[in-house]
Amino acid sequence: MTIEDESKKLHKRLQGKIEVNPKIPVNHSNLKLLYTPGVAHIVQEIAKNKDTVYEYTGKGNTIAIVCDGSRILGLGNKGPEAALPVMEGKAMLFKAYGNVNAIPLCIKTQDKEEIISFIKNIAPTFGAINLEDIESPKCLEILERLKGLEIPVFHDDQQGTAIAALAALLNALKVVRKRIEKVSIVIAGAGTAGYGITNLLRYAGAKHIIVTDSKGIIYEGRPHLNHYKEKIAALTNQKRIRGDLSNALRNAEVFIGVSSEKNLVSKKMIESMDKKPIVFALSNPDPEILPDDARAAGAVIAATGRSDFDNPVNNVLVFPFLMKKILAEKIKNLDEELFYNAALKISSAVKNPTAKKIIPSLEEMKRVKL
Amino acid sequence: MTIEDESKKLHKRLQGKIEVNPKIPVNHSNLKLLYTPGVAHIVQEIAKNKDTVYEYTGKGNTIAIVCDGSRILGLGNKGPEAALPVMEGKAMLFKAYGNVNAIPLCIKTQDKEEIISFIKNIAPTFGAINLEDIESPKCLEILERLKGLEIPVFHDDQQGTAIAALAALLNALKVVRKRIEKVSIVIAGAGTAGYGITNLLRYAGAKHIIVTDSKGIIYEGRPHLNHYKEKIAALTNQKRIRGDLSNALRNAEVFIGVSSEKNLVSKKMIESMDKKPIVFALSNPDPEILPDDARAAGAVIAATGRSDFDNPVNNVLVFPFLMKKILAEKIKNLDEELFYNAALKISSAVKNPTAKKIIPSLEEMKRVKL
Repeated sequence: MTIEDESKKLHKRLQGKIEVNPKIPVNHSNLKLLYTPGVAHIVQEIAKNKDTVYEYTGKGNTIAIVCDGSRILGLGNKGPEAALPVMEGKAMLFKAYGNVNAIPLCIKTQDKEEIISFIKNIAPTFGAINLEDIESPKCLEILERLKGLEIPVFHDDQQGTAIAALAALLNALKVVRKRIEKVSIVIAGAGTAGYGITNLLRYAGAKHIIVTDSKGIIYEGRPHLNHYKEKIAALTNQKRIRGDLSNALRNAEVFIGVSSEKNLVSKKMIESMDKKPIVFALSNPDPEILPDDARAAGAVIAATGRSDFDNPVNNVLVFPFLMKKILAEKIKNLDEELFYNAALKISSAVKNPTAKKIIPSLEEMKRVKL
Repeated sequence: MTIEDESKKLHKRLQGKIEVNPKIPVNHSNLKLLYTPGVAHIVQEIAKNKDTVYEYTGKGNTIAIVCDGSRILGLGNKGPEAALPVMEGKAMLFKAYGNVNAIPLCIKTQDKEEIISFIKNIAPTFGAINLEDIESPKCLEILERLKGLEIPVFHDDQQGTAIAALAALLNALKVVRKRIEKVSIVIAGAGTAGYGITNLLRYAGAKHIIVTDSKGIIYEGRPHLNHYKEKIAALTNQKRIRGDLSNALRNAEVFIGVSSEKNLVSKKMIESMDKKPIVFALSNPDPEILPDDARAAGAVIAATGRSDFDNPVNNVLVFPFLMKKILAEKIKNLDEELFYNAALKISSAVKNPTAKKIIPSLEEMKRVKL
């Protein structure tokens, strides 16, 4: 059976990948404690002191995964219903690997202001929010606008992807014995992930980054750049090189693809890179170039975002584990320092990185404390 | 230990009464089916035909419990955080007795329009909505305004309470050998529950109902009645009797209290009723009169809404079971016929009703198919 058929069959059998269960069996003797009349005392306690909601309820270990379906995986705007199986999958992984209760909330509106007020409205119920698969740059602005919210907002597509990419890159650089400060890096895609990766690689010390979007290389002063691409321009491409992705790749040492464009990169483009290049084609489900093709064209290390190839540089190595830490330590301020330290710990979970093994497995991650 | 202390202790130990679990263990071989890349095919299927979301996800068996904290139990406006332990309790019961996955969503806004658009926005994720503990008459209007929503909206405080009350009343009337068409009924409380009970008792054939609120007996033409109290006036009190609750109770045969007012009813008021009256003091956590006092004053049948007394006339006998039916049969239109039939089935689950046993236990309800 193909993955497609197998996946359909399994989804049809399960009819939902998660379920909501009582933590203890309900019976006649605990019902009066957990429900009326006993619960009325808990209501009064929390009403007196709102902070006790963390002691008496699941708020502190429960998150909402909020998605408007406007950019699902690399598939585009497919609407909230089509987003639900992905968000259920994430919720499943949050629990399996982070012991975090996660609730998918796929919402009808795709309006920025409505999404912001939606999230403000659900904040009392949750310990944190995970933004997911919302189109760029809307999602970047939503995250900025929610800075003052009473609970932390994690943006997995931006921050989780960046942490996974940095963790993998740190090990890949160990394999080829290069330093992040020295290598030339090309990032294809200046949306959510591209923006997050650029910021985190800069924080990690990378100095030579070029970012491309569908119009080619981003440089300061390029007409019609949005606010976030202007920020990218300011952080990268100091020489203001112009041109397209193939120009950018010539002699580059690292490629990181987060473009959502299948087959964006040809073997020829890989061949034009510096010798023994590192090629991360992270778009899901269809990478910019398949790893076998990248290796055939000279890549010494090839990675994708998919769990069915070697070196799966996937956010799943990050989000359950980091969210567990954020909730357990009640971290309010999600910043580059937090993300950088997470990437360091993830990369060091691989004791002896090799070309085929630059990233820990999910099982290995279980032993890591972020 | 008091119920209060025991309840606090148990809530502190659990830190949340529900948890979100994967339906099957996640492992390396099913990850590619349940998550990327396999899930991308499911996204495409649902994007092609939105109805398949019921086949491939948990939408069809998952509901949201939406509460703004504006009227929690009978305790008043305590805010969304204080509502959370109650909604977690309901979610626990939805699963334990209805096998329904229920998600508490306690929201910050108490604005009617914002609540309506909030619910419209979450509709893609859920198979139904359960409105809970929202102040009246706002909640009644919200329900009316959501009539055209693509998924059913159940209003437990209104509809669930009415079904439980009717089921208990039908058995109580069997015990005293009276017919619903003939008895005189006084309902204290003209909020959500009072409105729901009035409507359902009328549908069930009751002809002699008087409803009171904090200003006394409701009659057609009473100044400043809101839209819903006007409807109550049109359905009840044909003789346009005026006065207060004690006037209404004189010679009445049935009392149903849903007033949220502790000690609203005195022994003297019960004594003034017809001989062998039926007294349902359903406010939670504090009934209008304690059952022992009601009996001491002559009540032949006494009931409360609490699970720690005999005859617990509590919505928990309704909502998990009815929601299970609504979801399984994809019932779109929640109407009086549905509610009346549910009440009939619940009442007939008690084979031989007695004064101490007019309502089935939760365990007995497990064997009932609504």
